[in-house]
Amino acid sequence: MTKLFNPRFSPLSVALAGFLALSGAASANSPVSKHVNATAAVASDNITEADVLAAQRAWGEALVQISKDYESGGVAKAKATAEAVLDAAYGYHLGPVLFKPTLTVAPNTFRTTREGALAYFVGGDKNYPDDKGFALRGWRAVEIKNVAIQLRGDTAISMGNVMLTDKTGKITTVDKTWGYARDDQGRLRIVLHHSSLPVSN
Amino acid sequence: MTKLFNPRFSPLSVALAGFLALSGAASANSPVSKHVNATAAVASDNITEADVLAAQRAWGEALVQISKDYESGGVAKAKATAEAVLDAAYGYHLGPVLFKPTLTVAPNTFRTTREGALAYFVGGDKNYPDDKGFALRGWRAVEIKNVAIQLRGDTAISMGNVMLTDKTGKITTVDKTWGYARDDQGRLRIVLHHSSLPVSN
Amino acid sequence: MTKLFNPRFSPLSVALAGFLALSGAASANSPVSKHVNATAAVASDNITEADVLAAQRAWGEALVQISKDYESGGVAKAKATAEAVLDAAYGYHLGPVLFKPTLTVAPNTFRTTREGALAYFVGGDKNYPDDKGFALRGWRAVEIKNVAIQLRGDTAISMGNVMLTDKTGKITTVDKTWGYARDDQGRLRIVLHHSSLPVSN
Amino acid sequence: MTKLFNPRFSPLSVALAGFLALSGAASANSPVSKHVNATAAVASDNITEADVLAAQRAWGEALVQISKDYESGGVAKAKATAEAVLDAAYGYHLGPVLFKPTLTVAPNTFRTTREGALAYFVGGDKNYPDDKGFALRGWRAVEIKNVAIQLRGDTAISMGNVMLTDKTGKITTVDKTWGYARDDQGRLRIVLHHSSLPVSN
Repeated sequence: MTKLFNPRFSPLSVALAGFLALSGAASANSPVSKHVNATAAVASDNITEADVLAAQRAWGEALVQISKDYESGGVAKAKATAEAVLDAAYGYHLGPVLFKPTLTVAPNTFRTTREGALAYFVGGDKNYPDDKGFALRGWRAVEIKNVAIQLRGDTAISMGNVMLTDKTGKITTVDKTWGYARDDQGRLRIVLHHSSLPVSN
Repeated sequence: MTKLFNPRFSPLSVALAGFLALSGAASANSPVSKHVNATAAVASDNITEADVLAAQRAWGEALVQISKDYESGGVAKAKATAEAVLDAAYGYHLGPVLFKPTLTVAPNTFRTTREGALAYFVGGDKNYPDDKGFALRGWRAVEIKNVAIQLRGDTAISMGNVMLTDKTGKITTVDKTWGYARDDQGRLRIVLHHSSLPVSN
Repeated sequence: MTKLFNPRFSPLSVALAGFLALSGAASANSPVSKHVNATAAVASDNITEADVLAAQRAWGEALVQISKDYESGGVAKAKATAEAVLDAAYGYHLGPVLFKPTLTVAPNTFRTTREGALAYFVGGDKNYPDDKGFALRGWRAVEIKNVAIQLRGDTAISMGNVMLTDKTGKITTVDKTWGYARDDQGRLRIVLHHSSLPVSN
Repeated sequence: MTKLFNPRFSPLSVALAGFLALSGAASANSPVSKHVNATAAVASDNITEADVLAAQRAWGEALVQISKDYESGGVAKAKATAEAVLDAAYGYHLGPVLFKPTLTVAPNTFRTTREGALAYFVGGDKNYPDDKGFALRGWRAVEIKNVAIQLRGDTAISMGNVMLTDKTGKITTVDKTWGYARDDQGRLRIVLHHSSLPVSN
């Protein structure tokens, strides 16, 4: 992962360098100002790039798992797995999730509730009659290609392509935005998920 | 610096491990879900421990510099340096700064404005008649000993002791809280500063 | 706008109510603990629902304006307006913007740079040969229907439908996610924009 | 409470006003861009001034309650109440709390753990031999006078004076900084608390 360091982010010592240089001040490494007995506890909720990548891979694994569980145990098994995934990976218990799945249509385009998300993944909910169970389509592999990630404290957003391969080898590519928030237990939760098919030229 | 990793912060893949393990899913390193052509731009305003430590050292250097400039160039030179420090290191242009300096007294205990902060550091402001110029006291070295730091996105707070050595070798120890916010140019700004003398037993 | 107050957000006084009630403590309005001479300065970067709605309406006005300027002054005038809009309303100066416009295709699906965004809105950039100028399509009115908004300090995200009416009266509906961040001057900046056409049934 | 609206915070529509005015665009209230069927769910973790004030009053009530429980039920009752207060009002379960109580001395100046905080409030902990139980001092009333509050999403900091009145009518004034973070249940938690006696002139 090539991390593009943002050049506008300079430490304060750089900010002060101008007047300190003019004033003949000691360098940043001078003993004039230093830390001693440095054993501070450092607590951070900040989401890292590694956190985002791990959450994305886990999402892919989960989608494949639901497909496999459907094949080995039917809708009941797939549904149980999907519920576990929703409860572990999404933030529905924190409030409405901004979820626009790839294939939903009006009037049920947006799935801000856990019920709506579950219906999308495994179908069979009479309130969402157009849902056929996106996670039941025989998915075998998921590849993720981010174009950019923004890390903002205990939240983060990513955008890019996701390539889904099914058991026949067919690849479906989607344009994907994910937003994450870290919960009090330290887990990343999906609080935003906008997926769309590329437009045809 | 011993970083105490907070054990509650586990990646999502750990969160999902339970049901995936039960379901016989592939491990987190499985090719089932992976990143490809990983060249995402990663933008982050998050403050790191290194950012905080650099800002603290720069504060110490600046305090010593004001003292030295006072000795070499009088109050005028010290004041110019203090103004540069305030403009480079504090966030007064972003709103009221929560600043309780070590030695201020009522009714001017709190210095939420740039003027109040400048008066504290170099004195000579008739609106702050008790100020004698804290930065003019012949400071030669600053040592910082943090007990804990909290990193919260583009803000951070630290607490600990600061030991100030003057030109006679006398050491003054204070209890210190600093709060930082990163501005749009990427610079850390002090937006909170509470300093107090230890109570006598 | 019906604001759905999140019931999990209770003030601390509610959190303490249990033991205080058991202990026979005074109510929250008791003179036991109160504020005096309350004239505190309150500084906040927090984005409100009204801020989000104003930013959304301004986006719609800007799109219509570019269309009208194209008709009255040609591409040059439209481009000047589009640049002003990008500089006033998007956050490209803050880092890569996560922008997936409605009609872009690979390999130029994502427009993380100002150049890519400008090409999308007004076309005519040889690096983006598929761009025909989305903002030049004779837009006359924009209606926005949010399904949910998340406010997170100086950032916010919204999801919903946007209905674009052109001069022939034809309405184009898109599924839209916007993410905002407040800059140091207090302006909301679009840092995320994912727009997609509804799938056909 | 006089809220000083920060003039730099202008809605985007103001930011865009310049070029829109020049371009002859419709006003912000024009039907060119508007919201329809506005029933969006709005979720927010943002801390308000009212949240901070409620948390401050609750802290004062809790301190008085511990004093009263000590008088009616001895140390055991006071300790039970103090533990309930710490668990309801502080964020020790979220990581180290930056707590510098009013009267602590080296080497136990800072109380980043729940145990250290409990020892300070009710004493009797052999690891903190200087602690005499700050909350047992017959407190009867707490008055809070903030000089400034910064609201930053799900965190906030306040600075000001707190006046504590004991049962003899004696008033103790302290300089106080509090930092808050909202937890997943929506409760404000004290994650920073720096208290100090005013310096004597």
